[in-house]
Amino acid sequence: MEPTEPLGRVRPQTVRELGEFALIDRINAGRVQAPAVLLGPGDDAALISAPDGRFVVSTDMLVEGRHFRLDWSSPHDIGRKAIAQNAADVVAMGAAPTAFVVALGCAADTPVEVVDGLTEGMWSEAGRAGGSIAGGDLVRSPRMVISVTAFGDLRGNAPITRSGARVGDVIAVAGRLGWSGAGLAVLASGAEIAPAADLVAAHRAPRPPYGVVLDEPTRPNALTDVSDGLLADLGHIADASGVAIDLDSAALWDPALEALAERLAVEVALDVDAAQWVLAGGEDHAFVAAWSSGSELPLGWRRIGRVLAGQGVTVDGLRQPGNGGWESFRGAEPDRR
Amino acid sequence: MEPTEPLGRVRPQTVRELGEFALIDRINAGRVQAPAVLLGPGDDAALISAPDGRFVVSTDMLVEGRHFRLDWSSPHDIGRKAIAQNAADVVAMGAAPTAFVVALGCAADTPVEVVDGLTEGMWSEAGRAGGSIAGGDLVRSPRMVISVTAFGDLRGNAPITRSGARVGDVIAVAGRLGWSGAGLAVLASGAEIAPAADLVAAHRAPRPPYGVVLDEPTRPNALTDVSDGLLADLGHIADASGVAIDLDSAALWDPALEALAERLAVEVALDVDAAQWVLAGGEDHAFVAAWSSGSELPLGWRRIGRVLAGQGVTVDGLRQPGNGGWESFRGAEPDRR
Repeated sequence: MEPTEPLGRVRPQTVRELGEFALIDRINAGRVQAPAVLLGPGDDAALISAPDGRFVVSTDMLVEGRHFRLDWSSPHDIGRKAIAQNAADVVAMGAAPTAFVVALGCAADTPVEVVDGLTEGMWSEAGRAGGSIAGGDLVRSPRMVISVTAFGDLRGNAPITRSGARVGDVIAVAGRLGWSGAGLAVLASGAEIAPAADLVAAHRAPRPPYGVVLDEPTRPNALTDVSDGLLADLGHIADASGVAIDLDSAALWDPALEALAERLAVEVALDVDAAQWVLAGGEDHAFVAAWSSGSELPLGWRRIGRVLAGQGVTVDGLRQPGNGGWESFRGAEPDRR
Repeated sequence: MEPTEPLGRVRPQTVRELGEFALIDRINAGRVQAPAVLLGPGDDAALISAPDGRFVVSTDMLVEGRHFRLDWSSPHDIGRKAIAQNAADVVAMGAAPTAFVVALGCAADTPVEVVDGLTEGMWSEAGRAGGSIAGGDLVRSPRMVISVTAFGDLRGNAPITRSGARVGDVIAVAGRLGWSGAGLAVLASGAEIAPAADLVAAHRAPRPPYGVVLDEPTRPNALTDVSDGLLADLGHIADASGVAIDLDSAALWDPALEALAERLAVEVALDVDAAQWVLAGGEDHAFVAAWSSGSELPLGWRRIGRVLAGQGVTVDGLRQPGNGGWESFRGAEPDRR
């Protein structure tokens, strides 16, 4: 025991002390794989079922300090977020998640309990999405990096792309908009605002409503998840479909966000616009879709706009100044090495 | 132009200057996808064919300074290596590579030509393996990180795992052993040894002999690729199969490596053992397999040992001191942040 440690306190074991192979055993111990995983960890590769002869695949990388902060989120939340954003991409194609593989890079002095939290969060969200973690890679990296690849099964259906929106369609959303961005603003402000706990939780680990796509027999004409910001992601649908989209601001108004913006203005003199969280805040992983105008919207979906002839995305007929979508290399701050 | 730049020299464009979306367009421009890629980049996820209702998947992460150095390898070589090591894992299950997805993290000041080189190398090796790059993710990271996920099709065959070796089987290898480790030793020594160019090239970008598995109608009982070192990787087969493996040192002798070890001893006083490169050097991505003793070895395979009752791996009946296999978190050097 280090002489400076309080008596009785056990210094956290690091991944270097435990070793790569013991850590892999620990990560995989007692896990029950989803039915789609025919061969799980332990060989050169995993084997996954693809019942209809195709599979959907999406991959995302999360870098510490860029996509998450260990002082703002628990390892469990970070693990959940890493799986959720990939599962949402798979569901946004109209497919049911089946399995995930995860590559994790971390420093040798990373406490084992941080890896425990990450993997628990990942398994928890993978289960929520209907899959399991079939394998991965574990490497040493000075900055923590999590790379998730997610797989999904279309169950014989056609994929729902971004290019199927037609003039006259209804634009509808399922899930919350702007909550992740608002939660991030609270964390960045350092303010302690108790009623904002749900928004901060929404930032730390989004909960995409997978069921609003997967449980419905009727399917939208175009679909995506809101990862870069509502205007940016609807812009992708408008571009890919060759149509214009107009949103109804009244349908986007969220009293919880309005109240929070007011409190941040009063308590920490922060000038924020709740509408910007809704229109440009990413990472909520809500689903947004174009539905045929004749069809009744399934439960969980709410109408926020419509598809018109033309191009671009407007709100109440007006173009918005700057979409504010996420762009990886924007910003002049130097990379920390 | 910066005043300190020589007249007429164009400063390399960085990924920040080009921007994420223009860089993604540049990466994907003019690419021809493999037949298995039903939907490529541009939507929430890709769609890949899996004709026999299953797919093989492997993922690996490569971290700059840990798995590659931009001053030791060209971006093209690094891209090839990233794809090759994943394709080798897929082939080591007996499957034919069909597609890859790639997540790339790089600093905002990375020259665009570095990304060009990486992606060219990736596409080149993906084509060599029989697949293409169906999608990916591009994020900002202070240290370069490449995460590749590879997919393969078993064509109706059973997967070839590590657990199928039986007492009496012949152990055979296809591809070179120890060349990557020897090439690394040359790079690390700083010595300029012209005849070692092939070994250095083998370290910079391995060329796994995919065809020795994929083109053969007869299949081995157990198979893996040599990524961690021959003894370590055969140890996995011995453990998984519940058998012992004995190697014949005479069959492992490589005159090119012996000659190099002698030159390093004479010219830079480096005390190296060529046998250690063969037994413990990883990253060659040769294939090693257990074949039924009755069957004739297909072209490209050479006998190096046999499967016995018992456990562990020996050379000429002797246990080796320390397997020397790669372990990610070993080594006391601090992580550079």
